[in-house]
Amino acid sequence: MHTQVNPVGKMNLLSQAEVDHLQQSATSELYNLYRNCSLAVLNAGSHTDNAEDIYQQFLDFQIQVLRRERGVKLALDNPPKHAFVDGVIIKGIQEHLSAVLRDILFIGDCYNSNAIDSTTNVIFDMLRNANAIIPDSSPNLITCWGGHSINSIEYKYTKQVGYHLGLRGFNICTGCGPGAMKGPMKGATFGHAKQRNATGRYIGLTEPSIIAAEPPNPIVNELVIMPDIEKRLEAFVRMSHGIIIFPGGAGTAEELLYILGIMLHPKNQSQKLPIILTGPIESAEYFQQIDTFIGATLGESAQQLYEIIIDDPEQVAKTLKSTTKDVVAHRKLTGDSYHFNWSLVIEAEFQQPFDPNHEKMASLNLHYDQSIAALAANLRRAFSGIVAGNVKASGIKAIRENGPFEISGDSKIMALMDTLLHSFVQQQRMKLPGSKYIPCYTVIEG
Amino acid sequence: MHTQVNPVGKMNLLSQAEVDHLQQSATSELYNLYRNCSLAVLNAGSHTDNAEDIYQQFLDFQIQVLRRERGVKLALDNPPKHAFVDGVIIKGIQEHLSAVLRDILFIGDCYNSNAIDSTTNVIFDMLRNANAIIPDSSPNLITCWGGHSINSIEYKYTKQVGYHLGLRGFNICTGCGPGAMKGPMKGATFGHAKQRNATGRYIGLTEPSIIAAEPPNPIVNELVIMPDIEKRLEAFVRMSHGIIIFPGGAGTAEELLYILGIMLHPKNQSQKLPIILTGPIESAEYFQQIDTFIGATLGESAQQLYEIIIDDPEQVAKTLKSTTKDVVAHRKLTGDSYHFNWSLVIEAEFQQPFDPNHEKMASLNLHYDQSIAALAANLRRAFSGIVAGNVKASGIKAIRENGPFEISGDSKIMALMDTLLHSFVQQQRMKLPGSKYIPCYTVIEG
Amino acid sequence: MHTQVNPVGKMNLLSQAEVDHLQQSATSELYNLYRNCSLAVLNAGSHTDNAEDIYQQFLDFQIQVLRRERGVKLALDNPPKHAFVDGVIIKGIQEHLSAVLRDILFIGDCYNSNAIDSTTNVIFDMLRNANAIIPDSSPNLITCWGGHSINSIEYKYTKQVGYHLGLRGFNICTGCGPGAMKGPMKGATFGHAKQRNATGRYIGLTEPSIIAAEPPNPIVNELVIMPDIEKRLEAFVRMSHGIIIFPGGAGTAEELLYILGIMLHPKNQSQKLPIILTGPIESAEYFQQIDTFIGATLGESAQQLYEIIIDDPEQVAKTLKSTTKDVVAHRKLTGDSYHFNWSLVIEAEFQQPFDPNHEKMASLNLHYDQSIAALAANLRRAFSGIVAGNVKASGIKAIRENGPFEISGDSKIMALMDTLLHSFVQQQRMKLPGSKYIPCYTVIEG
Amino acid sequence: MHTQVNPVGKMNLLSQAEVDHLQQSATSELYNLYRNCSLAVLNAGSHTDNAEDIYQQFLDFQIQVLRRERGVKLALDNPPKHAFVDGVIIKGIQEHLSAVLRDILFIGDCYNSNAIDSTTNVIFDMLRNANAIIPDSSPNLITCWGGHSINSIEYKYTKQVGYHLGLRGFNICTGCGPGAMKGPMKGATFGHAKQRNATGRYIGLTEPSIIAAEPPNPIVNELVIMPDIEKRLEAFVRMSHGIIIFPGGAGTAEELLYILGIMLHPKNQSQKLPIILTGPIESAEYFQQIDTFIGATLGESAQQLYEIIIDDPEQVAKTLKSTTKDVVAHRKLTGDSYHFNWSLVIEAEFQQPFDPNHEKMASLNLHYDQSIAALAANLRRAFSGIVAGNVKASGIKAIRENGPFEISGDSKIMALMDTLLHSFVQQQRMKLPGSKYIPCYTVIEG
Repeated sequence: MHTQVNPVGKMNLLSQAEVDHLQQSATSELYNLYRNCSLAVLNAGSHTDNAEDIYQQFLDFQIQVLRRERGVKLALDNPPKHAFVDGVIIKGIQEHLSAVLRDILFIGDCYNSNAIDSTTNVIFDMLRNANAIIPDSSPNLITCWGGHSINSIEYKYTKQVGYHLGLRGFNICTGCGPGAMKGPMKGATFGHAKQRNATGRYIGLTEPSIIAAEPPNPIVNELVIMPDIEKRLEAFVRMSHGIIIFPGGAGTAEELLYILGIMLHPKNQSQKLPIILTGPIESAEYFQQIDTFIGATLGESAQQLYEIIIDDPEQVAKTLKSTTKDVVAHRKLTGDSYHFNWSLVIEAEFQQPFDPNHEKMASLNLHYDQSIAALAANLRRAFSGIVAGNVKASGIKAIRENGPFEISGDSKIMALMDTLLHSFVQQQRMKLPGSKYIPCYTVIEG
Repeated sequence: MHTQVNPVGKMNLLSQAEVDHLQQSATSELYNLYRNCSLAVLNAGSHTDNAEDIYQQFLDFQIQVLRRERGVKLALDNPPKHAFVDGVIIKGIQEHLSAVLRDILFIGDCYNSNAIDSTTNVIFDMLRNANAIIPDSSPNLITCWGGHSINSIEYKYTKQVGYHLGLRGFNICTGCGPGAMKGPMKGATFGHAKQRNATGRYIGLTEPSIIAAEPPNPIVNELVIMPDIEKRLEAFVRMSHGIIIFPGGAGTAEELLYILGIMLHPKNQSQKLPIILTGPIESAEYFQQIDTFIGATLGESAQQLYEIIIDDPEQVAKTLKSTTKDVVAHRKLTGDSYHFNWSLVIEAEFQQPFDPNHEKMASLNLHYDQSIAALAANLRRAFSGIVAGNVKASGIKAIRENGPFEISGDSKIMALMDTLLHSFVQQQRMKLPGSKYIPCYTVIEG
Repeated sequence: MHTQVNPVGKMNLLSQAEVDHLQQSATSELYNLYRNCSLAVLNAGSHTDNAEDIYQQFLDFQIQVLRRERGVKLALDNPPKHAFVDGVIIKGIQEHLSAVLRDILFIGDCYNSNAIDSTTNVIFDMLRNANAIIPDSSPNLITCWGGHSINSIEYKYTKQVGYHLGLRGFNICTGCGPGAMKGPMKGATFGHAKQRNATGRYIGLTEPSIIAAEPPNPIVNELVIMPDIEKRLEAFVRMSHGIIIFPGGAGTAEELLYILGIMLHPKNQSQKLPIILTGPIESAEYFQQIDTFIGATLGESAQQLYEIIIDDPEQVAKTLKSTTKDVVAHRKLTGDSYHFNWSLVIEAEFQQPFDPNHEKMASLNLHYDQSIAALAANLRRAFSGIVAGNVKASGIKAIRENGPFEISGDSKIMALMDTLLHSFVQQQRMKLPGSKYIPCYTVIEG
Repeated sequence: MHTQVNPVGKMNLLSQAEVDHLQQSATSELYNLYRNCSLAVLNAGSHTDNAEDIYQQFLDFQIQVLRRERGVKLALDNPPKHAFVDGVIIKGIQEHLSAVLRDILFIGDCYNSNAIDSTTNVIFDMLRNANAIIPDSSPNLITCWGGHSINSIEYKYTKQVGYHLGLRGFNICTGCGPGAMKGPMKGATFGHAKQRNATGRYIGLTEPSIIAAEPPNPIVNELVIMPDIEKRLEAFVRMSHGIIIFPGGAGTAEELLYILGIMLHPKNQSQKLPIILTGPIESAEYFQQIDTFIGATLGESAQQLYEIIIDDPEQVAKTLKSTTKDVVAHRKLTGDSYHFNWSLVIEAEFQQPFDPNHEKMASLNLHYDQSIAALAANLRRAFSGIVAGNVKASGIKAIRENGPFEISGDSKIMALMDTLLHSFVQQQRMKLPGSKYIPCYTVIEG
């Protein structure tokens, strides 16, 4: 099967110089990344979180950027069939495909990724390019974090929370994928429909190495692919007016450590950003474990940054309704933008990409002999590495070749981590059910 | 709990003469009907199809039409709580409540219901008043008929059909309520979202005696309450560009007999209106029974008016995509309206309201000694009566007081009906599961 | 030349009963009125205010209402050519033509014009039918009254006032026609454009007997044809949030007397409605004469109802900006509608149609032996008769056949009227320049 | 007077890096250009075409770019008062001010102006940044060229042409300023209003050195300031679907020579671009002179590229209506963009900025010993220099200091130029009436 697709949005209005540049990019080493991300969005709706499996299944898939007088066309060879209706690509997938073109080929290689001091400007620019910052709109964006592999009780709970958020006019931002990333959007859709809100936003923020394992679900009507996990996390935090954390595995722990590490920064003390940990009654113990881990590693001041609400979706929405008022008031007071929190201080240790390998994982400093924020940053990296070993193509390959990552540090911290990770494994939070999970790490209690 | 609600849409712009008239209506004998319909839409989402139960549960619910200088307000005492979010009525329910005010009080009593020759004009006028006829829009409205009580496999199938219709840009019209009336809308919502179609229409056509048992599901974004079942059926037929019939019980049989009776009229021979009977593989036998019944009562010419598609949701949507092209071409050729089929001939026997009671049911002519269309009309009345006995407040009361309706007629027809009705009972199509069904009829084989 | 035109708006969605009714109306005695009004809007842009001349020029013009399956078409024979561009009717004129169909044929004959107590409801209903009442819009409608025949300095001044109103977001309502009815709209267009306001409203309120002499100028984007001059005046007053009176002749005097007569009613004392008389420095004397006339007839309390602003267009707009705030505050306080002032009391003497003839004009009571409001009402009728004799087809005919109207009354009042009318004649305010004006009245000083 | 203004559109959504860059630009040598262009748009509506006079009048005007957390603000000291209504800046002027910020400071200094081979990409990028290229809109843009100083008969004629274009749905693009740049827009506004077209585009393309002398009239609702005259001319030509040339002076001659020079290129032979020279009957001789000059310099093949239509505004619009159909058909055939003609070949000699001074003007090759296209390019430069000497600040200064430019060349060509320029002077086309025109050139017949 061969077909051609017109890109939409900004990618539908290119100069010939840009078209030339796109074509050159598409033949460079970037091509493979571009091809894989395109395949991921075309394959949305599939039921595996193993990126390698997906790539194996569509070995004969090809995508080419064709030069036309009036712009570009995308030529697709052997694309997944369910992306098309009667031979015509589904509009939502066409948009996602255009987002990949935009974020990976068009602007993805414009920025010098080492220029840390301009990281925030790059993030802003990418979000703006994606029309994801809408100046005159209401400040009502809630980021939902949580596992892609959660059980059906938890999934139903995330839908309920989304529903009550939608009823109250909130928009949803997640990391793409199934589970806790799809549930709140699906629920919000229903809440928006009941309130006759036809402009609901369902923003998916992803990055190239995770997009295949957790492709944008079809509800995502704004897709942005950030260059790396750190920029993606920063985008979440600067765009949001509130954050919800559902049950999840290593990735969710990474996200929680990230936001706590930042909010603990002395300069961020006056910042307002409600953080709510929530799940059904069956998940109460899960959050107790998390809370204990945070208390024992980052301390009480970290625990005071979040609220845990068990089994009350409506209360979650009501709490955010009242606390986001404070967020807006604070932004107004400080003259900050309503839709991109410029004044939040994010240090380099949270911005620098961490590309996990055996050596880096082994040398992470997981002792108490550092600032709380630094410890949070290093703990985040540890969990980030485990996510990579679980679902990212590069990580899976590294583990297959060299065995599990070794993590070592303070014995108390190591004991806590071991307990926490064990519970993730037992609760099937590491990978989608159906496959036996073989840990990609070994905790070496120092 | 007491609260006041502003009506929306047309009901938000009334002259003082109209406000006076509304107030007078609201204190008349019409009040009870108005109150009950209002309660039904406020109570959407409940899980019973027994109108009496609902009315019993909210005995202290009151609604009053208040006169204000700038129009009317609705004062609600003790309304169902889940119609509100943080004390504010849900927008969709506010719209439904305004539709009840409009259709029952405002225009419902304007028309002289005996003036048969103007029935079609009344229907047009009510639909226009509800903004349900949009002149410059695409002709793409599919009516879905089927049971409110269907099993989960069938329900999932109706969602699949709705999804494939939505992907192809079709809008959905149903009779309100759960089951086959909700599934296609829910599926279409998802299809529309994937195609970034934010203007999907989910039209619910109901009538006062059925609205409590089958209240508008929250997806319905256009609600019209026709004065009686016959006008409701005519509205379906004149508005639609295609009809799908899912598995169902007596009500679905009534709808099928109605449309076949009309399409069999000699003057309607050149009319184009695709009719598709469809369900999952598990329902294949159901449709065979229906088909046999139609063949044995109305004959082969009736059977040729519909197509049966088993277990292929995508094929249903594809077939309608191609046949609705013929519908539009025919309308263009004859100069008929795209959105209200004026040229379809509907005889008085299909327009006159049939208000079933024991006497009328007993005296129905169900013999072969009449035209096929007349037999279709009488068979429809028989099934209509059974629906009333099953779920309508008046019918339930009549049965409780006087025992089951007696239906008699030609022995072959009676045998066929008996078999068909038996299968409906066995398959739990008569009432929502959970209650034991006691038949409201006795078939007396003559 | 023969052509067919589709009506737009509400006239594009009619039931067959309505189409039949329209056809019958169009062949009745109403036809001539309908034909003439249609001709008037097709002929917009012509340069005569003599209705008879226009009718003479297009004796072979015919309009027919054709029945089509999907509604009506208008068949035009020999219409004025400049209503078409390359054979296609200009959209604005098509809308005006549809407004004539709606107001004259469709709803014009629905109301029993003698039912005085429901006059206000009729007016509301007609305005609502024309979509001229928009519930959720800002209250910002300024009615501009003034002569159709004004000199170029005055015309330029009305444009200036319109410009400053437009800059401040006001919409304009006038009586259609050239001069002071066109200038403010033209100016406001420019003001709206500078403020990037693309939804400016230019409402023309007219009535059948004046529409040919003062056809809607092309800027009018909402045209409503009220049944008679009294309903038209009431519509102005109930819709407006402020009134400006520019220099004019007998018609302008009629309008001023009308609004003063109403505002003088004891029950209207708390009403807020700013009235501003304004013109260029050259018109200062004109307003002094008017003010003297009002003072000597209706007294000081009437004079306090208006403000005279000479030669300061910006001040006019600024004054209205601040006073309309009071209007809105008062409506909010009393719970009255923002867009239709229901609470204003208008007595029958101001609502009953006055159809001037020699007998009625001669018997008008123009003495002091009555309430001020009654005197205002009768003075209004006197000026209304003079307008008819000047420009309306029926009036022109009556004068030609029976000589000028005779007006008599209190000698002081007669002297004042004579002076005022003389000045109107001298200043060429009675008729468009180019023809010698022969007075249609004789003032008999009693 | 001091006030602060928020920029709108793209300038309302800047990263902090961009804000920093803007601030730095605003303090650089670019500042003066930025200040002057800002002053020009704030001063729109003034009645002089002498840039120096304007700058002298507002010596104390200052503009500063202020950094705010959420973006920039513009601080204005002593701005022209008529840009404000009740202390609030007029929306249209706010947009123009934002366009200056965007085109001069924000992107104006991004491009390396010597990189000729990318000139077209720069032009495309600037137009796209200004949202002036709208992919899915109808191809209907007519560029109108002609003098800023034309007599009232000619001005009225340009309005008539604009009116007939507007009636037929055309949008208008001109070079900003009064005269033939304002008339067609004003007329089109009226035509659009009659056709109820609320999305009419009135595009003004200007450049920094001309903006003060010919500021955007208030009708311009899209303003783009190109870096130099050559890019501005190229923008006109690539965006347009037809070109109208009204009577004008040196600038108009420059524009005609530019487009003819390009269309004469062998590779542009299959290009479709209707060019119409038109004016009232009083201008017939003017066009005869122009036609003679073109015939005698560029020859018959150049004359065949345009059509002269005298005194028939409707015919101009009708001709464009039929010829733009060919334009669209040709674009479709060649796969070229509908809104930016990429395939038109424009050689470097037409792209390189010509910054006239005495030396360059004296050394222009105005002989027959070159290709026709080269001669056209040099003749264009000659007229371009005269425009600079007439109205641009730099040119006026150069002339004042060093006397008139000397132009020499082939004696036949010189004689033709002398005649043509003489007639421009006599017809007051060089400068707005009111000042005595002192030629800024001397033609030296070689």
